[in-house]
Amino acid sequence: MRDLQPQRTLEELRELRELTGNDEGAQRVAWSEIWAEARQWMRNKLEELPVDIEVDEAGNQWATLAGRSSRAVLLGGHIDSVPNGGWLDGSLNLLAGLESLRRFAAEGRPSLTIRLVDWADEEGCFGHSLLGSSAVSGSLDPDLVRKLVSKDGKPLTEALASHGVEVDRMLLSRSQLRNAVACLELHIEQGPVLESLDLPLAAVTGTFGVERHAVEFRGQASHAGSTPMNQRRDAFAAAARLALEVRTLANTEDGVGTVGSVETRPGIATAIAGDCRLTIDQRHRNSEGLQRMLQGARSASRTIAEEEGVEVEWERLWNIHPIPFDRELIELAEYAIVEVAGKSLRLASGPLHDAAEVARAGIPTVMLFVQSLRGLSHTKEEDTLPEHIELSVRALDLLARRTVERFAG
Amino acid sequence: MRDLQPQRTLEELRELRELTGNDEGAQRVAWSEIWAEARQWMRNKLEELPVDIEVDEAGNQWATLAGRSSRAVLLGGHIDSVPNGGWLDGSLNLLAGLESLRRFAAEGRPSLTIRLVDWADEEGCFGHSLLGSSAVSGSLDPDLVRKLVSKDGKPLTEALASHGVEVDRMLLSRSQLRNAVACLELHIEQGPVLESLDLPLAAVTGTFGVERHAVEFRGQASHAGSTPMNQRRDAFAAAARLALEVRTLANTEDGVGTVGSVETRPGIATAIAGDCRLTIDQRHRNSEGLQRMLQGARSASRTIAEEEGVEVEWERLWNIHPIPFDRELIELAEYAIVEVAGKSLRLASGPLHDAAEVARAGIPTVMLFVQSLRGLSHTKEEDTLPEHIELSVRALDLLARRTVERFAG
Repeated sequence: MRDLQPQRTLEELRELRELTGNDEGAQRVAWSEIWAEARQWMRNKLEELPVDIEVDEAGNQWATLAGRSSRAVLLGGHIDSVPNGGWLDGSLNLLAGLESLRRFAAEGRPSLTIRLVDWADEEGCFGHSLLGSSAVSGSLDPDLVRKLVSKDGKPLTEALASHGVEVDRMLLSRSQLRNAVACLELHIEQGPVLESLDLPLAAVTGTFGVERHAVEFRGQASHAGSTPMNQRRDAFAAAARLALEVRTLANTEDGVGTVGSVETRPGIATAIAGDCRLTIDQRHRNSEGLQRMLQGARSASRTIAEEEGVEVEWERLWNIHPIPFDRELIELAEYAIVEVAGKSLRLASGPLHDAAEVARAGIPTVMLFVQSLRGLSHTKEEDTLPEHIELSVRALDLLARRTVERFAG
Repeated sequence: MRDLQPQRTLEELRELRELTGNDEGAQRVAWSEIWAEARQWMRNKLEELPVDIEVDEAGNQWATLAGRSSRAVLLGGHIDSVPNGGWLDGSLNLLAGLESLRRFAAEGRPSLTIRLVDWADEEGCFGHSLLGSSAVSGSLDPDLVRKLVSKDGKPLTEALASHGVEVDRMLLSRSQLRNAVACLELHIEQGPVLESLDLPLAAVTGTFGVERHAVEFRGQASHAGSTPMNQRRDAFAAAARLALEVRTLANTEDGVGTVGSVETRPGIATAIAGDCRLTIDQRHRNSEGLQRMLQGARSASRTIAEEEGVEVEWERLWNIHPIPFDRELIELAEYAIVEVAGKSLRLASGPLHDAAEVARAGIPTVMLFVQSLRGLSHTKEEDTLPEHIELSVRALDLLARRTVERFAG
């Protein structure tokens, strides 16, 4: 059986959902027993192929189909999910890659080595997204990782140790990229753009840069009844103004800006908020736009603080530069999409993905997006049309074939 | 010793603070042991006077100095505090009243009966403010009260029972107002107005009407990176706009409007808020202004919801009409203030007070406010200058004397 069977991917996705999900959605949280079962299920499938299976120092699981050259094309995915997650986020990538690997294996020894990787803990269940892929790319900071603790107080080091991963040794996994010449990843869009344009697939041009901050306004808590409007130092009023300014800046710069978390103290109906802490997440496809959005928000926060008689303080929670994907691979991706679906779109990715870590390490990389229904992800409502899933498997496989041809030549 | 001794009030306030406070502030929470001790301390003082002491069916403690007529002038206060409260809120009223009662007693049988009442649970430690005074006024709803539970799960009925109060019998305390001809209450301002005008005392013209609502916006939680700005249904953006509109309305109508509590869900940096619940507390000295502010906010919320593509729902948490105090007593209060301090001010009260319940029941009522430093209350930082405390005792006593003269005549 030498032909690609995209409907098999669909069946396997459903099988995995049955095995590792419940009424609340997917439960393949990294380092959990269900996650380990999902990986075993995946190994059982891989063992039917002439591949070598190994788990690296960071917990990533690799299946290697040796080619005539040791130079390797990587296909990546992640079988872990968020708690109560969707059935496609991460696992579609992996199972579509498996189907392509089967097709390569069925055709005999490929000209390049093909490697399918299941990245460990992409969702960052201890608060560190892209854990396994950032170890492989070398961007992981072991000192920072060592301190991480789950929401219910379990140290990350313990969870990793129970799966044979030691933080001190995680960066040794960098050797996995030694022979890599390209990295390809398919993912659901997790946003509404493809659906709104009625397109199944897009070639991803790179990932957005992100500036994520916590901003705290400090005014004066006082009685909602006895404090005249002109004598208030209302921390929430300042926050409300800043949130709307963050939105205006995102519109002006054609980026995105989100205030997702807001906390007021004392946080009762009868008191003016003395303190308000909000998060600001700003993203842009290029560094200049991102910096203009950030500087705009900082400057607005100072003006607002002065006008409202409150103090303002910024704390950086996280940031990352925009990561552009490989120009030639983007063209190959578009070619493959047009071939299977007639029309393509170029789109930058707002969410981060393991592929961005590989690109950061200097490996030519590209991603494909397939349409998400209603743009939903990280919820049991996450879904994609079956015909789009099949198209996406075809597009990934065709891209892999063209990539091998290109780099073998 | 026939003279008023305002410095004694100051000493007794300090004594009470020592006895019932700690490093975090006053701990005289109603129905607690410390509260019972405070009341016993108060009874010991009262027992030195020719007064009858009783506790009514709602737990209010009355000391009655019989006059030549049974028609009574009431002096009110409350010895209970919020947890970690201030030393003056409630107890200044009571101890200033005690000093005036002493002066009346020292002068022989007064022409009218003088009654000093310590209202039970003014602060509403089970969520029902003015508990004891609302029973006396008849506005208390026993069915509602019966269901109340403290933050740590203790039923109000249990707490009351341990102090001999049965919910079913609370309204019997209405008989306490049978012979009342006037009610006087001194209170700290709990706001910054007097301090900003450099005045020690004000005559209170009444209490603001209040409309308190919870407003919930429901949009769509989605990924902060993958959802373009023009495809968002951001519940927090809607809330931020409404909060600023509530402020504008308060400024326009010369009332106050506060958004003190704001909660976003899922409430994380990387997700657009799918839900946002905020509280809106609006207050105005007259009903028309209050209704214009409320209707303005309702109408703005609908416009905003439509523009933001979100749903909006209002839930009334509580409301009360403006309660005007007695015109003649306001004049007497101003007269007393000018007499002791040279200058007076008329001010409506944003916070509610026990006196408003008595006024609601049709008894001519007035209050005096004394300056609060920095407008702070319900915190250990609550304070008033000693010289202002002494002035306030003089003003209350003079007002009581003039009120007796007026109603005896």
